Amino acid sequence: MANSKYEYVKQFEQPDNLLPNTWIVVRIDGRGFTKFSTKYGFEKPNDKRALELMNAAARAVMAELPDITIAYGVSDEFSFVFHKTCSLFERRSSKLVSTIVSTFTAYYVHLWPIHFSDTPLSPPLPSFDGRAVCYPTVQNLRDYMSWRQVDCHINNLYNTTFWALIQLGGIDPTEAEKTLKGTFAADKNEILFSKFAINYNNEPEMYKKGSVVFRDVSISGNYELVEPGTHNATAEADSLAEPIQQSKTQAENDKKRRAKAPIVVQHLDIIKDDFWDRRPWLLSNKPGKVPKEP
Amino acid sequence: MANSKYEYVKQFEQPDNLLPNTWIVVRIDGRGFTKFSTKYGFEKPNDKRALELMNAAARAVMAELPDITIAYGVSDEFSFVFHKTCSLFERRSSKLVSTIVSTFTAYYVHLWPIHFSDTPLSPPLPSFDGRAVCYPTVQNLRDYMSWRQVDCHINNLYNTTFWALIQLGGIDPTEAEKTLKGTFAADKNEILFSKFAINYNNEPEMYKKGSVVFRDVSISGNYELVEPGTHNATAEADSLAEPIQQSKTQAENDKKRRAKAPIVVQHLDIIKDDFWDRRPWLLSNKPGKVPKEP
Amino acid sequence: MANSKYEYVKQFEQPDNLLPNTWIVVRIDGRGFTKFSTKYGFEKPNDKRALELMNAAARAVMAELPDITIAYGVSDEFSFVFHKTCSLFERRSSKLVSTIVSTFTAYYVHLWPIHFSDTPLSPPLPSFDGRAVCYPTVQNLRDYMSWRQVDCHINNLYNTTFWALIQLGGIDPTEAEKTLKGTFAADKNEILFSKFAINYNNEPEMYKKGSVVFRDVSISGNYELVEPGTHNATAEADSLAEPIQQSKTQAENDKKRRAKAPIVVQHLDIIKDDFWDRRPWLLSNKPGKVPKEP
Amino acid sequence: MANSKYEYVKQFEQPDNLLPNTWIVVRIDGRGFTKFSTKYGFEKPNDKRALELMNAAARAVMAELPDITIAYGVSDEFSFVFHKTCSLFERRSSKLVSTIVSTFTAYYVHLWPIHFSDTPLSPPLPSFDGRAVCYPTVQNLRDYMSWRQVDCHINNLYNTTFWALIQLGGIDPTEAEKTLKGTFAADKNEILFSKFAINYNNEPEMYKKGSVVFRDVSISGNYELVEPGTHNATAEADSLAEPIQQSKTQAENDKKRRAKAPIVVQHLDIIKDDFWDRRPWLLSNKPGKVPKEP
Repeated sequence: MANSKYEYVKQFEQPDNLLPNTWIVVRIDGRGFTKFSTKYGFEKPNDKRALELMNAAARAVMAELPDITIAYGVSDEFSFVFHKTCSLFERRSSKLVSTIVSTFTAYYVHLWPIHFSDTPLSPPLPSFDGRAVCYPTVQNLRDYMSWRQVDCHINNLYNTTFWALIQLGGIDPTEAEKTLKGTFAADKNEILFSKFAINYNNEPEMYKKGSVVFRDVSISGNYELVEPGTHNATAEADSLAEPIQQSKTQAENDKKRRAKAPIVVQHLDIIKDDFWDRRPWLLSNKPGKVPKEP
Repeated sequence: MANSKYEYVKQFEQPDNLLPNTWIVVRIDGRGFTKFSTKYGFEKPNDKRALELMNAAARAVMAELPDITIAYGVSDEFSFVFHKTCSLFERRSSKLVSTIVSTFTAYYVHLWPIHFSDTPLSPPLPSFDGRAVCYPTVQNLRDYMSWRQVDCHINNLYNTTFWALIQLGGIDPTEAEKTLKGTFAADKNEILFSKFAINYNNEPEMYKKGSVVFRDVSISGNYELVEPGTHNATAEADSLAEPIQQSKTQAENDKKRRAKAPIVVQHLDIIKDDFWDRRPWLLSNKPGKVPKEP
Repeated sequence: MANSKYEYVKQFEQPDNLLPNTWIVVRIDGRGFTKFSTKYGFEKPNDKRALELMNAAARAVMAELPDITIAYGVSDEFSFVFHKTCSLFERRSSKLVSTIVSTFTAYYVHLWPIHFSDTPLSPPLPSFDGRAVCYPTVQNLRDYMSWRQVDCHINNLYNTTFWALIQLGGIDPTEAEKTLKGTFAADKNEILFSKFAINYNNEPEMYKKGSVVFRDVSISGNYELVEPGTHNATAEADSLAEPIQQSKTQAENDKKRRAKAPIVVQHLDIIKDDFWDRRPWLLSNKPGKVPKEP
Repeated sequence: MANSKYEYVKQFEQPDNLLPNTWIVVRIDGRGFTKFSTKYGFEKPNDKRALELMNAAARAVMAELPDITIAYGVSDEFSFVFHKTCSLFERRSSKLVSTIVSTFTAYYVHLWPIHFSDTPLSPPLPSFDGRAVCYPTVQNLRDYMSWRQVDCHINNLYNTTFWALIQLGGIDPTEAEKTLKGTFAADKNEILFSKFAINYNNEPEMYKKGSVVFRDVSISGNYELVEPGTHNATAEADSLAEPIQQSKTQAENDKKRRAKAPIVVQHLDIIKDDFWDRRPWLLSNKPGKVPKEP
């Protein structure tokens, strides 16, 4: 029985390779997580277990896909960044997105019992959707990352105040919403401090800054962090007049080095230059470029 | 702290809405399942538990996404079909693909212990990738489905013979491959029968035909199967001069009816007209079009 | 001097092949034609010379590109239709659009002196932009064509009345606009008739219906028009369970037949079935399907 | 008569906006120019009239579209570059390509009699196709330009030698092709010099280097060329951490300045840095950035 009669249907597949030499961000979001978080009794405004489960899943994704440079997570979303020279899956958008979303989901479900030991999952199960976006320059990429971190800050300050009003102030959600309408950051800080003796600055870093996941080649023993102020990683990465793809050998070597480096989860400011300047391997994609000083 | 400074990055998101009035097929494939099946000792040539887990996950996907019309699975792949009038997620490709892939993965991992009760999952976990393809006509869509089912047949006949040679004939894989090189279907049938007394026709339907998953509105009590030969579902579905989208109310009603119908997993021939002609609601997307005869 | 160092830039070219088995419409529009028509003193509401120049350019485009099935023009726009089986330029969108737009422009400029014998062109020269859109079914395609022809009717009735009020009624444009605000078709017909003794039905067909350009295989001597009511060209074209591309030989033969048929410009109703049912070769793309009756 | 019934067809239009913050190159090519050049007796290996007509048409395109930064032409092709901040037509690919191709064609046909005064055009008329490609960095863009100029050099050296062998050496094309097979640049230079006393270096610059078309703001009186070696335009343009779009006012001002600057056609090396470093406004898109020195 020949299959050739039907094979013409392959012609309908349309290519979706992303523009070369651009940074690829795959962002995934929890589907219907408001309802989901209610079902499993997530704590408000932040559930430590849920965030740590997100981070654990993200770490696992990075471990399975060494091509990912860095990831940033907040609430029920996570953004994964591929370096502009990345040629994984020939940069096919649907392949990149579906692989990340599937791997993330697998670990989210698999690791659930570790983080929620007394609440087994039941249908409908948690799921995520995703999309890929290209950013031509490091500046555009960093602005994307900053956008997410500013969003994290704005939402967390609002939520912290909102739930303090309810949980500590004893008012209902409608009342709380009314109280916060039109307020600025300073007002919310003031409410927290004067009414509830909460200093927002002392809130956990994970809640205020979100979670940055990356390979720390400085830990793996061969490199160390670069002194701040000695290096402008952003300008350097953009001005490199390089081939848009590395040589196979070099790429393999770098991949191995990255694969060996421990994947860390930290809660740092990624808006300012400091984070990037001290870890030039993130933007250069060259784990071997920064020799350990004696 | 205003977020507006960074919000320009949203401009880099590019739309990926699929062409209206075309059938959407989202196909997902297991990633690295050769290695995965070895790790968990899948039986050869077919592992009943693994196939039933695939089918269970596909059923769950269809239960969570009533917009899916039909699905077809074989080995570690599954194709999900959205009706041409579907407007779920505004037909955004990455959203459709990632949602299906994520939901499928969630159930695959969650239901694993039911199907593989004595082999717990461990990293690296199973994952799937996916893509969406549009087919303009029912004929194109059915040719796609036929392509997959013919593929199922060709592979299963080969694999059944290949593993019979090894498991029953005692030769090694290289030898078995050599034996089968250049053989036709008839030759393989003959090898099975003469050497191992296996009548291929008696092999389980699930292995020979794959698995069709659909909502059986005839079971839900209001309709019944249409007599074969009285109906040409393919021509009718294509020649309908309808709006490309239904009215909201009608769509909602139909969705509810579909949601109520039991989702069945069957192992039928979907190449011939019969399957489609007897279940006109699959192609018409109108569960209410076929009244129960008195 | 090797060129290989720079050749990597070809990787940035992204494919734009249009979905197979769909009807392709390339619509071109005059750029800044309000200003352009003022510069060359186009008559209002319609300039016969300008419309005939458009039609002449469209005919030339069809003569140079036998893959075009039919074209429809009104005012400064023209829509060119490629049959769903068309594989010209591998269906690359930018190639199809740019070729049509360039050929049309070349003839528009070249033929200008024939239609505007006493007004030579001077910079800025007339130019056109264009885009391609895919329609999956004949019904969608015909609805597109109907949309353009209804638009022609609505605009022409408005413009005819508007300019009658100014040219014959002696009022100024602002006044005329005010007079027509909120009026229905019947009102405009009434104004024309009662105030200016103009029966809109007697206006030239080209102004009321626009221009249909197609190959009339019935003229070339081998076929004749099909009796209305005996044929449903739309349903037939959609329900054909054919390969999405013809055989090379058949395609070549059909192309030759089409190339021989005279290209006509007519001003007919293309909304009703009649036009299409009588000329089945337009939708079937098979000039040889309709034998000459004895 | 309401048009709303058909308006749904607009939903089939799919967006084709090009990725922001990338350089857009629209390249157009003559269609069937081998045949065309034979028909009109173009001189071999280069026809001065034909090239000057191409250049005149390109200049006209740039005059009508001040958003174009620079253009490069060779043989029957021309590449037009839009600055990465360009937002013309919302960066819609088909609109950009069709507008350029149409405007170019209009001038090519219109100016033909000036350049070919004794050979009037006749159908089939000259036409061009085109496509748009995005380049994320200045380096990628310059590599594209270098690719075209190297191609010009390679082809011109070959053609010059090929036609010298035929026109001066008296051998036929097949013989000439055989003679040149496997030769390097040095060999061709040697053939030209030893056999025909032609020093390739003395060939006209337009043939050897192609034609660069750009706005020379240094001529318009306010600026002058920058000293070579004082400026690295490429690195600067890429490392600018700017908004991806200028403010409306600034953009308008810059547009006016550019529109005022004379458009020049020159035959320079655009592979080396010198050309770009001396004209920083080309890559910065800021005609006002380089003050006239006292």
